[in-house]
Amino acid sequence: MAEYIESLRLLAEKFARLEGVGKKTAMRMAFSVLELEEGEAEEFARAILDAKEKIHLCPICQNLTDREVCPICADEERDHSQICVVTDARTVLAMEKVREYRGTYHVLHGLISPMNGVTPEQLKIKELLARVGEGEVEEVIVATNPTVEGEATAMYLSKLLRPLGVRVTRLAYGVPVGADLEYADEITLFRALEGRRDVH
Amino acid sequence: MAEYIESLRLLAEKFARLEGVGKKTAMRMAFSVLELEEGEAEEFARAILDAKEKIHLCPICQNLTDREVCPICADEERDHSQICVVTDARTVLAMEKVREYRGTYHVLHGLISPMNGVTPEQLKIKELLARVGEGEVEEVIVATNPTVEGEATAMYLSKLLRPLGVRVTRLAYGVPVGADLEYADEITLFRALEGRRDVH
Repeated sequence: MAEYIESLRLLAEKFARLEGVGKKTAMRMAFSVLELEEGEAEEFARAILDAKEKIHLCPICQNLTDREVCPICADEERDHSQICVVTDARTVLAMEKVREYRGTYHVLHGLISPMNGVTPEQLKIKELLARVGEGEVEEVIVATNPTVEGEATAMYLSKLLRPLGVRVTRLAYGVPVGADLEYADEITLFRALEGRRDVH
Repeated sequence: MAEYIESLRLLAEKFARLEGVGKKTAMRMAFSVLELEEGEAEEFARAILDAKEKIHLCPICQNLTDREVCPICADEERDHSQICVVTDARTVLAMEKVREYRGTYHVLHGLISPMNGVTPEQLKIKELLARVGEGEVEEVIVATNPTVEGEATAMYLSKLLRPLGVRVTRLAYGVPVGADLEYADEITLFRALEGRRDVH
């Protein structure tokens, strides 16, 4: 009986720590690890340690990277006068798939949420203000999710940024209200980008 | 962009090796690993290695265990004259939840499937025959999934086992045809066990 197998139970617990993994799925994955070849399991363990060790935040845009500065911030072909502000690194991936956006990003690592105890200080907002303060930035596109928290964060940022003389825009409501940007299709994201509007 | 982050891509690939994990889920999990505390990621890696290292097959029933002989085979309170034959270790867990079955198990580690190139020799069938050959066994309950392959394997086992003088039974069709036993509810499994019938 697997309930008796301590190491299997422990492994399932680790899987269950991951976002969106329930108990049953976690146990299924733990069983699945046992079916891996010996070498594959070792590579898996190594990959976890490697990812944790090598990946850190880009000092400019706060996106995840394994380089000193992330490839987007380091790319001189990109338009550094535009910053697209996103909630997390996964949204950067989704935006990049559109292939229409040529500016840079800024990853907040969360949204302001008094209900969940997330205050502006916990997000990468002061880093964003510092970037804008340097003077090169002309437009900040706030691409937070079209949810209550996403809107509230956009409003908060707008109030801080507009006095600095930059245009603050918001993705158009091409993305369905209440949805997660990560799962938006590329055309929807493209239309939302095209129809972006000023935040007043 | 995460496509640039080699170690993140590699980690997602490892997750995608696990049964039932698609590309998108795998990437989500890889991101999720980055959000773990440093120590937690190390524990996760360690748990993978530990599980692989400590868990092996019980020499009697072929179920997964971290002991020399699994707790069920080692339990003298269990009825060793009954063997419930299952496809995999997960089905043992599902059966144990019924709490009505007091016999032992035998894990085949697959089903006969000419389509997928799985022959009887690749399953733990000779180990089952050896157990039955020792003479203590009176009944073999074949609890393979009620699918084409499950039925075919049950028929195959019945033909080998009945000449040895044991009763060969099959779970009643209380379990919905085509379903996976792992997801059957406890009452259904219990009824299926009660209504088990002889295989002719």
